[in-house]
Amino acid sequence: MTYQAAVRDILFTLEHIADVYDLQGTGAFPDLSADLVQAIIEEAGKFTTKELASLNRAGDQHGSTLLDGVVTTAPGFKAAYSKFVEGGWQGLSFPQDDGGMGLPGVLGVAFMEMLQAANMAFGLGPMLTMGAIEVLIQAGTEEQKQTWLPKLITGEWSASMNLTEPAAGSDVGALSTSAKPLSDGSFLLAGQKIFITWGEHDCVENIIHLVLARTEDAPAGTKGLSLFLVPKFLEDNDGNFTIRNDVFAIGLEHKMGIHGSPTCVMEYGANTGAKGWLIGKEMAGMAMMFIMMNSARLNVGAQGVGIAERAWQQAYNYAIDRKQGRAIGLEQYPAAIIHHPDVRRMLLIGKAKIAAARAITYACGFAADQAAHHPDATVLEQAKRREDLLTPLAKSYGSDIGCEVSSSALQVHGGMGYIEETGAAQHFRDARITPIYEGTNAIQAIDLVGRKLSMAGGLLFVEMFVDIKACVDDCASAADKRLQTIAEQLSLAADSLQFAVNYLSDPKCSQADRLSGATAFQTMSAQTIGGFYLAKGALAAVKLLDEQGQDEKYLTGRIDLALVFAKSVLGTVPAGISEVTITADTIFALDIEGLAP
Amino acid sequence: MTYQAAVRDILFTLEHIADVYDLQGTGAFPDLSADLVQAIIEEAGKFTTKELASLNRAGDQHGSTLLDGVVTTAPGFKAAYSKFVEGGWQGLSFPQDDGGMGLPGVLGVAFMEMLQAANMAFGLGPMLTMGAIEVLIQAGTEEQKQTWLPKLITGEWSASMNLTEPAAGSDVGALSTSAKPLSDGSFLLAGQKIFITWGEHDCVENIIHLVLARTEDAPAGTKGLSLFLVPKFLEDNDGNFTIRNDVFAIGLEHKMGIHGSPTCVMEYGANTGAKGWLIGKEMAGMAMMFIMMNSARLNVGAQGVGIAERAWQQAYNYAIDRKQGRAIGLEQYPAAIIHHPDVRRMLLIGKAKIAAARAITYACGFAADQAAHHPDATVLEQAKRREDLLTPLAKSYGSDIGCEVSSSALQVHGGMGYIEETGAAQHFRDARITPIYEGTNAIQAIDLVGRKLSMAGGLLFVEMFVDIKACVDDCASAADKRLQTIAEQLSLAADSLQFAVNYLSDPKCSQADRLSGATAFQTMSAQTIGGFYLAKGALAAVKLLDEQGQDEKYLTGRIDLALVFAKSVLGTVPAGISEVTITADTIFALDIEGLAP
Repeated sequence: MTYQAAVRDILFTLEHIADVYDLQGTGAFPDLSADLVQAIIEEAGKFTTKELASLNRAGDQHGSTLLDGVVTTAPGFKAAYSKFVEGGWQGLSFPQDDGGMGLPGVLGVAFMEMLQAANMAFGLGPMLTMGAIEVLIQAGTEEQKQTWLPKLITGEWSASMNLTEPAAGSDVGALSTSAKPLSDGSFLLAGQKIFITWGEHDCVENIIHLVLARTEDAPAGTKGLSLFLVPKFLEDNDGNFTIRNDVFAIGLEHKMGIHGSPTCVMEYGANTGAKGWLIGKEMAGMAMMFIMMNSARLNVGAQGVGIAERAWQQAYNYAIDRKQGRAIGLEQYPAAIIHHPDVRRMLLIGKAKIAAARAITYACGFAADQAAHHPDATVLEQAKRREDLLTPLAKSYGSDIGCEVSSSALQVHGGMGYIEETGAAQHFRDARITPIYEGTNAIQAIDLVGRKLSMAGGLLFVEMFVDIKACVDDCASAADKRLQTIAEQLSLAADSLQFAVNYLSDPKCSQADRLSGATAFQTMSAQTIGGFYLAKGALAAVKLLDEQGQDEKYLTGRIDLALVFAKSVLGTVPAGISEVTITADTIFALDIEGLAP
Repeated sequence: MTYQAAVRDILFTLEHIADVYDLQGTGAFPDLSADLVQAIIEEAGKFTTKELASLNRAGDQHGSTLLDGVVTTAPGFKAAYSKFVEGGWQGLSFPQDDGGMGLPGVLGVAFMEMLQAANMAFGLGPMLTMGAIEVLIQAGTEEQKQTWLPKLITGEWSASMNLTEPAAGSDVGALSTSAKPLSDGSFLLAGQKIFITWGEHDCVENIIHLVLARTEDAPAGTKGLSLFLVPKFLEDNDGNFTIRNDVFAIGLEHKMGIHGSPTCVMEYGANTGAKGWLIGKEMAGMAMMFIMMNSARLNVGAQGVGIAERAWQQAYNYAIDRKQGRAIGLEQYPAAIIHHPDVRRMLLIGKAKIAAARAITYACGFAADQAAHHPDATVLEQAKRREDLLTPLAKSYGSDIGCEVSSSALQVHGGMGYIEETGAAQHFRDARITPIYEGTNAIQAIDLVGRKLSMAGGLLFVEMFVDIKACVDDCASAADKRLQTIAEQLSLAADSLQFAVNYLSDPKCSQADRLSGATAFQTMSAQTIGGFYLAKGALAAVKLLDEQGQDEKYLTGRIDLALVFAKSVLGTVPAGISEVTITADTIFALDIEGLAP
């Protein structure tokens, strides 16, 4: 059995954890129905597994090549991209007025997960394009929208996101790419950008680069940054895009993984100057960047879930087929290794972590949809707060478990996992970039502790604790003993998280102490909230089991999955306190020289 | 600054944690002195960093090639191997009577760590040879010793360890390679072995293969296995080794890492039959295998420590050089990233984990030396029990932190860490094999829970708890507040571990429940015992600080390092209980179909 989209898990999470149908109340999605959701997810599952999954290994083996500024993608990628465009997948969650399918963003997140699971290197292209579309929709002028949006939404054109420079990674304030105004209102850009995902390739006719740069006399730091749209091809007098702009790929990175994704060094304006247009206001670059980044952060979370699912399925299939040793209470010798407790443990806990991370990303996508569309301002604002809370958690936890699960999946294979031909190693290598890009997970933790914790007077966590408390009460009063255990574990985890929130929110807690415990706090938060969503799913499963015609086995499994997460992952949450409260004094006790080997 | 052997940490651990000079009491090492230990470690540090560290990347890039049965190693490897032989390093911990240096095995472990840090792919060759030498010393006939040992100990010949077959990995009982007796007392072997590290290469004149095989009419399973010595070249009538034996490399694996180490598919007896000789008694193959395996398990632990140290140093150097963003309380902008709390946290906790794993491996090496040589039977038996307890912990914890630290070291680099040229990715890829080979870490956990826990009526853990308790008392009564904190954390961790020991030792705990919690128990054990050894080092540092002429800064740092380990790692030990007690019912709640995607 090869990889297949996790349609059943995706639908369950959309329907019973992310409450996708509640979006009918926004009025923004008149066609939204159970039939439609099911049809879209099944169709997306078919497309991604059929057209993209089989190219994953070829992408890894061949990568992309650069010759005279032309990037040729791996064999099969260009044809697959055409089919991606044909299916209209790029426009899935964008307004019908702009040429999209007009479906909720949370379905876009589910699609993104399947896309990344099928082929992470390929999926990065559409993911970056999505962020650019968001920016244009939210901040582009009418003319800009008319010029650029249609072909981006069909997928005929792609986009790239140009932030990083050699001396400016996490610190975007240090960017030095310059933009000079021209009399026609456009700008000439000059500078070098690195780590530009799908910055140049052969799958589309035009590439729209969104570039952070500094206008003349702009102040230093982030305040002086503006965002520019720089197309690969400019419009000629006939309205065709034939004039080659002065932006070229001058290098491709040799990476540990995602070989199929061309990671470019982009040179802007080395010759005549790269022509571009301001998006949004001058000096509003950071706000623009955050539109792209928020889209990318959530999608990287989905990507982590996707690569984990793919790696997990491979391990599951191997564990069923591979026979080795004697298993307790089993006649057959040799036994399939899935019968050995430690293999089963790795698979089960991996599945539970994937389910939790998936729930967080979809819940975040749902909150974003409500925050964008809900007619009731109170609901809308609350949804915005939920989105703000969940975005760093979706990114960090999705990417963290992407690495963890692809590692345990490799381990399930034993020595075979280390052999490249097996395929497990590719997932492990591919996954490792996700905690780094689109803001390292430490940057997410700084966002969580530095901004989100105190935002709206601390309401983000207060509201989450209210929801968790209600869920604990529901679980505790359920007849099923498993739910009672879940209630106990979730309650203990939430108490620990509350303790950590209080510690970090205390004005006596210094900024340095806060940052020293930030990553551990982020992990505690994601684990607790992930456990809460799985408990919510378990409660839904209990209710569904009372109905006729349900998949009894699957629903019981959802309860077991929540239970195993509660016992294993939620059980470790209280231990996070000692890491959250470690203090800067401890972290900095050894000075630089004292640390030296 | 490039990689340098961690001489200061290694000496401190040997002297103040592993108590290397107590081996003087065995009478087996008359030359053992502080001067000698220091000289050997410094010399080993020079050799490994100068001759081997610089070849590490070439090994990764070029790997080995196989043409017509001939394996050519990466550029520079052959010349470096000659220097390795010249220095007599292979014989470091073997008896002078056999041509070795006659030093304790624990110094061999320290050397192994440096060797693996400098060049893991290279270091695997000597590591495997070491295991074969152990077997010959302990179980070879006088004639076998005279024939094979001298050139193995000089390093002029190397050895390989042939266990795995395509259908027999962790389950060696399923091996099918056959051995037919000949009238001259030798055997003809036939069969295929896979994953044979340094099975064929161009660095030495002869390769001595130790091969697990089944004699005719031998019973099925492990009981029917015997160990054979099969040289690449057989002795001719003139006493020279010129006759090519029928054993050939027929394939090289394409692995995720350790590219410089040729991993061979070996074919025995495809033509005339591969001539070999029985080592030890017929059907005693498992006992022989455990001699090799115990040596290899401890050395893989040292390898994990080595690769972690190498990766850590690269991250440390990068964090000093790389400037990015503004750091709290620091004037300079941009600040070196080592001033950012999360980067500092990763480096500090990484260093503490390395120190703990190093302490466990050296303590294990010391126990093995005492167990082999101590004249007092009571001391010897106690040492054997300590060695038995620490061996699975050294292997699993060393390799686990090898992966963890090489991953956090990559993370410190941000996006640059994912670029192959940076070098961080190689360490991450190389390290990932260590939890798999020489018995997966799950196999180590089964050994710990299935054999070691109940061995000698449970005395292995009882004795360890006595030592930990004494250390807690010493720390608690120290004037230094840091030691008091360490005492609290260590005491809590030990209580949790004791709880887990009681749970798993209870006759009511089923075998399936025991195996379901085995890996978590192994982690709890290693973390607690690692924390104990660091606390022991901190106590030694306190004493040394009262003496004149000591490196005050370094010794204070040792206390801080123990403290950070106590606050971060020991703090998480109690959380392990929920994973240890998870039960088979929970692990197997979802059946195979229920797990399916």
